[in-house]
Amino acid sequence: MKSISINELKNYFNQEITISGFVDNIRNLQWVQFIILRDNTGKVQITIEKSEENNKEMVELFEKLPLESTIKVTGKILDSPKVKLNGMEIIPTNIEVTSKSDEELPFNFKDLDGVNLDTRLDYRFIDLRNDKNNFLFQVQSTLVKYMREYLYNNNFTEIHTPKFIGAASESGADVFEVKYFDRVAYLAQSPQFYKQMAMASGLNKIFEVAPCFRAENSNTSRHATEFTSFDVEFSYIDSYEDVMNLEAEMLAYAIEKTNEIHKDKIKELFNTELNIPKLPFPSMKLADIYEELENRYNYKVAEEEKNDLTTEAERLCYKLSQEKFGHDFLFVTDFPAEKRAFYHMRDEEGHLMGYDLLWRGTEITTGAEREHRYEEIVKNAKEKGLEEDVKFYLEFFKYGCPPHGGFAIGIDRLTMLLLNIPSVKETQFLFRGPNRLNP
Amino acid sequence: MKSISINELKNYFNQEITISGFVDNIRNLQWVQFIILRDNTGKVQITIEKSEENNKEMVELFEKLPLESTIKVTGKILDSPKVKLNGMEIIPTNIEVTSKSDEELPFNFKDLDGVNLDTRLDYRFIDLRNDKNNFLFQVQSTLVKYMREYLYNNNFTEIHTPKFIGAASESGADVFEVKYFDRVAYLAQSPQFYKQMAMASGLNKIFEVAPCFRAENSNTSRHATEFTSFDVEFSYIDSYEDVMNLEAEMLAYAIEKTNEIHKDKIKELFNTELNIPKLPFPSMKLADIYEELENRYNYKVAEEEKNDLTTEAERLCYKLSQEKFGHDFLFVTDFPAEKRAFYHMRDEEGHLMGYDLLWRGTEITTGAEREHRYEEIVKNAKEKGLEEDVKFYLEFFKYGCPPHGGFAIGIDRLTMLLLNIPSVKETQFLFRGPNRLNP
Repeated sequence: MKSISINELKNYFNQEITISGFVDNIRNLQWVQFIILRDNTGKVQITIEKSEENNKEMVELFEKLPLESTIKVTGKILDSPKVKLNGMEIIPTNIEVTSKSDEELPFNFKDLDGVNLDTRLDYRFIDLRNDKNNFLFQVQSTLVKYMREYLYNNNFTEIHTPKFIGAASESGADVFEVKYFDRVAYLAQSPQFYKQMAMASGLNKIFEVAPCFRAENSNTSRHATEFTSFDVEFSYIDSYEDVMNLEAEMLAYAIEKTNEIHKDKIKELFNTELNIPKLPFPSMKLADIYEELENRYNYKVAEEEKNDLTTEAERLCYKLSQEKFGHDFLFVTDFPAEKRAFYHMRDEEGHLMGYDLLWRGTEITTGAEREHRYEEIVKNAKEKGLEEDVKFYLEFFKYGCPPHGGFAIGIDRLTMLLLNIPSVKETQFLFRGPNRLNP
Repeated sequence: MKSISINELKNYFNQEITISGFVDNIRNLQWVQFIILRDNTGKVQITIEKSEENNKEMVELFEKLPLESTIKVTGKILDSPKVKLNGMEIIPTNIEVTSKSDEELPFNFKDLDGVNLDTRLDYRFIDLRNDKNNFLFQVQSTLVKYMREYLYNNNFTEIHTPKFIGAASESGADVFEVKYFDRVAYLAQSPQFYKQMAMASGLNKIFEVAPCFRAENSNTSRHATEFTSFDVEFSYIDSYEDVMNLEAEMLAYAIEKTNEIHKDKIKELFNTELNIPKLPFPSMKLADIYEELENRYNYKVAEEEKNDLTTEAERLCYKLSQEKFGHDFLFVTDFPAEKRAFYHMRDEEGHLMGYDLLWRGTEITTGAEREHRYEEIVKNAKEKGLEEDVKFYLEFFKYGCPPHGGFAIGIDRLTMLLLNIPSVKETQFLFRGPNRLNP
């Protein structure tokens, strides 16, 4: 008989079912054993009366079976309002042990307070058995599913661009080198150049969800040497505001759907409620932000720092966007172009035709209209001394290329902000950093 | 005004619209210019009467504008049954050139017969403007969308596993080395170990769509150093037949949906019709296949080759599965275990609890029940001398791990077979091989 999930049990009251899971807990009382079975949809109690002759083997089994072993249970599921756990219980007729756990776990995954994060990551396969950590990946999967759905509904095509690149192009410093037969290859820091190639190819509207690799030797809560990037690019835009609108709509759609599906369990496990963002997201110019931060919070920075958002300014923007707009998101525009990548479009005054998007004071996206005109992009590349390195890329613009723009979001960071989790180390399935390559 | 797509034009007859695309063709006649505009949804004719005073500027523009430039057109869309191309035409009031192509293209992408594949790949951004090549990626995107949808409907969670690994574990020979700060990392050849880690973590049913890296110095139509793998793994199976059934259902579902959506255009561009596979897919034991190939087609191989399918036997299996079952797919089971990976489960006679899946005579999947019992997996690893290399992986099975199984499909190869395309070099957005890292 096929195993069903614990959250389906309520549809089978008084019927014989088969169910599988981890042995979450065993309470061995004088007259009865209560076994708690766990799968990724919930927990259920198995009740074994010791006085029943037929139960003898089962009773003996659970006197020795280590917790976290996996079992397959056949029995009847009963509607039992007196049972604290979901008001139901299984009366088993047969139990099969499908795998046996070691007696001793490396740590108690049910209470992670005080467990060193490194130990947790060393034994990530145990750490992920924690209810919150396990559920987190269902939430992430749902969020990404509906981000994709929004794009499918708007006629986007999913593509898969290569991670091996021939030249360390976008910015040489932070790129990983690979021994590639008798030569050297590099790992793509982002699919930027290839997303744009798709535009030159006439693919019109594309997205990609794939790993990016950054050889940054930094250890912050927001950085990793490898992360999953949700990348979007589309043609025939009129301005970068089209890009901002699409991103805002996509996020609002996905967050709303995720909330519909996981609301109760997010409340139960994370003790938080998702704020469904209203459209449109508010937007401010960089210079106006610094002005307001000074006026409102007496936050002052030196003139030369005002060409970008300081980390502290980012943080204060959360307060600002809440007070001024009642919103968790804030678009920041009108960055000076000189500190930004050469492929972003600029207006005649050198202002970037792009934006950053902050969510609760943390940057989650850089988006922009791209420079699609051959002469201009060549000029920009020369200005940064990249002309030779990006030669192959400049070719993309030589034979006609539509005006286009796009953005990228790290889904680990997005999940971190969605659920108020302190670090991407906990929202990546398996974190990778300068000092972490295992397990 | 927002640009709409060419396939939406029929909803706007007699209205003013704005539309953007590549200049696909210009016919400059004595009294009239016919411009063909192309986007990724189709083509449409723009008609410019030369006698109209207001058209003077436009007429001059198209006398000099190189093909493949991109333009933005405002005008009225008319239902014109006399126009060969879709029975409609645009009468423009304004044309804006958004990018200008070079006069000369590297090759004629509209007729690729006789164009060297390497030249095409060098200029892949031109090659992809070919109607077939461009459309192919819409088909691939749709196929993958519905493979995912099938899994979402069955409560699967999408995960993203790391591509950096600490040890060259699965089989040292074909793995790429990365300079990772002051040490060496490797690129994952598959997410196999981490899919299984997800099972040990209690994630229950997962899938991943991500690049895999193989340092194989081989140049065939089916191999690449990097490809996109669609990986599935799930717990609490009773046998590898559960895996086979799930895979067959997923493929049948996705192929049927893809056909519903793209049927007409596949017929038009590829001159082929998709065969919707019936369920269940037929299945044969390896030994029985060799017997039938000999009886039916007089195909003989030496006894020592019969522990795997030869390439020729694979090819003949297409004929066999069509004649015997009227089916394009064929599961092959009962491989001897010794030639297979140590993590596949075996029965007591040493038969693999797994399968290959052939589609029209080409292998697209290896799937299996995995060995989930700690003592057994340690024994299997020792037998292959891998004990030290896979130490981190063996840990996954020590603290309880559900019975599980899974499979992987390369989506490039899948697309190749779906549309009868000769090589994955044409179904990857940008092919990567031992001698190809550009563009």
